[in-house]
Amino acid sequence: MYRFFYALNSCSLASHIALEQAGAEYAAVKINLGTSEQRADQYLSINPKGRVPVLATPDGILTENLAILVYISQTFPQAQLAPLDDPSAFAQLLSFCTYLSSTVHVAHAHGARGYRWADDPAAVSEMKRKTPETMSECFEMIETNLFKGPWVMGEDYGIGDIYLFTIATWLEADGVDPARFPKIHDHRTRMLADPVVQTVIAAQ
Amino acid sequence: MYRFFYALNSCSLASHIALEQAGAEYAAVKINLGTSEQRADQYLSINPKGRVPVLATPDGILTENLAILVYISQTFPQAQLAPLDDPSAFAQLLSFCTYLSSTVHVAHAHGARGYRWADDPAAVSEMKRKTPETMSECFEMIETNLFKGPWVMGEDYGIGDIYLFTIATWLEADGVDPARFPKIHDHRTRMLADPVVQTVIAAQ
Repeated sequence: MYRFFYALNSCSLASHIALEQAGAEYAAVKINLGTSEQRADQYLSINPKGRVPVLATPDGILTENLAILVYISQTFPQAQLAPLDDPSAFAQLLSFCTYLSSTVHVAHAHGARGYRWADDPAAVSEMKRKTPETMSECFEMIETNLFKGPWVMGEDYGIGDIYLFTIATWLEADGVDPARFPKIHDHRTRMLADPVVQTVIAAQ
Repeated sequence: MYRFFYALNSCSLASHIALEQAGAEYAAVKINLGTSEQRADQYLSINPKGRVPVLATPDGILTENLAILVYISQTFPQAQLAPLDDPSAFAQLLSFCTYLSSTVHVAHAHGARGYRWADDPAAVSEMKRKTPETMSECFEMIETNLFKGPWVMGEDYGIGDIYLFTIATWLEADGVDPARFPKIHDHRTRMLADPVVQTVIAAQ
């Protein structure tokens, strides 16, 4: 039994879907970002970074969405969420997920959390203004160069799909029309129709 | 034989050290960021993201430092750069490396590359001004909560050490005194004394 800490409208949706897809037994704990629960002492004693997601495992606390996704893939191999026996394919999947975590998610964060990198309100506003442009560039890169089809990495569904779907749900809020990216838009529609995804969204 | 594309003063130093540590056969190709060689058509045909590092493998082009580090670990298991047979320990290592790629490297990038997230020069200057503060917070987090010692993940040396060392070499340029973080400072000194690290720095 795992304990899983998540928040609404965050990348923790990806880890949540992966847990459900893997058939893991877990208790989900919702952290309220609106009341800054992630910065309260109780939560910081679990994750000093003050971020979600967190997966509390029998071997300890695991943080960072990408690491949790890989952990679930390796711990529930029957779910086939990653090409565990092919180092090249696994590395390509990690490359895609790393682009999401270190470039695309970061571009998105400048829309609502620019204060992480600037104190001046004018600078924070300027970052927010540019967010639709940077998010569009990221999704253009995915649409044109990274997405193989029918799934992110080609024939095999996996954590790359779950992670991309999660971030793609932010597009409208970031001022980007998802219809500009037909392959990703179609992918998002297919993902949203998945009963497992529906289950997690309803539970959150 | 791999082809490895890198640039000076970039995170590609980590992949470079890992290749050397693994005893891989590779040809290193230096990309000149000063002349924006990474945005020239020839390089974009290799990596459309216009970034370093890139590892050209027999199975295709691999991008993203973290993915390359894991690929080297898996392809050269005798180098023991990651706990490949322990999903929990492997996930903890990935968690640490993801923190470096998606939080610490990002904090650093606001010092010299704020234009990625803002057009207004005043906003770009404001990000640069705050960089010593955000980088200090990241290294405080590592020093206090993440670094286990004697190596990053405890008793076993690995890609977490190589990646931390690489980013720690940026501290002075980011306006942070590394002496504030005794464990990381000592780690950096030990890493710098490693003949393999010396070989790579001399080659670059």
